[in-house]
Amino acid sequence: MIKLGLEKFNTEEFLDKVDFDNRGLVPAILQDIYTGQVLMLAYMNKESINKTVETGRATFYSRSREDLWLKGETSGNYQEVKEISLDCDGDSILLKVKPAGPACHTGNKSCFYREFYRDADVSGWEIIYKLEDIIKSRKINLPENSY
Amino acid sequence: MIKLGLEKFNTEEFLDKVDFDNRGLVPAILQDIYTGQVLMLAYMNKESINKTVETGRATFYSRSREDLWLKGETSGNYQEVKEISLDCDGDSILLKVKPAGPACHTGNKSCFYREFYRDADVSGWEIIYKLEDIIKSRKINLPENSY
Repeated sequence: MIKLGLEKFNTEEFLDKVDFDNRGLVPAILQDIYTGQVLMLAYMNKESINKTVETGRATFYSRSREDLWLKGETSGNYQEVKEISLDCDGDSILLKVKPAGPACHTGNKSCFYREFYRDADVSGWEIIYKLEDIIKSRKINLPENSY
Repeated sequence: MIKLGLEKFNTEEFLDKVDFDNRGLVPAILQDIYTGQVLMLAYMNKESINKTVETGRATFYSRSREDLWLKGETSGNYQEVKEISLDCDGDSILLKVKPAGPACHTGNKSCFYREFYRDADVSGWEIIYKLEDIIKSRKINLPENSY
């Protein structure tokens, strides 16, 4: 593991800088380090941060189960963590990962597959990624108006 | 504005799908649509979503000021919204934007400039972006151990 960046700190020092909310949680963004695609947002507590650093696999805190949640534990789609960053005021985390498979339980690569609007001014690659997700999603959920 | 995606819905329909928390807020991720860089995480309420759609500029809800927060209002670094997506369970939003300037008040392009660790297995471009941010940041905040 190469340690870079403005500050070089260990897990304890990192945890000291995190501004956990009154539930002891902090939102964490999961991003594919290779494609840049944002995959999901989940919550971490101290224990899940320790587990993530220890195992190299993204581990969150499930608010519904009130327990640690190793992402990919049931699907096998572990999210191998390549980079961890903290934002300027310490109240959100960015995890850049190498995904072993789709991050979303729907089978989509990203949980953000429901698009509200898109400006005309977007790149061609974005549209190809999106189409790939739509096609995969259609295999799972067949909308009534799809043919 | 081209409307694509699995579902085509208007703002009211979109708002109905958002699972706001008990404060009436939902976390929103700001991502540069061109570079894929994750810029920041902030919170939106119904009013800020309406404002964002109406103006095309990312507008959040400031938890400290307890008021609407037009991103870039003081700095001029507005974040022009190109795409809005909702995650599978509706409790987080992804805004893809064209930034007029740095998203972070420190002068960094992204608020996630504090890096905890980075695996050796990363692309060269990532390192160049990071160096650019470090150099800019050093111009603003001179760390004691920097020379």
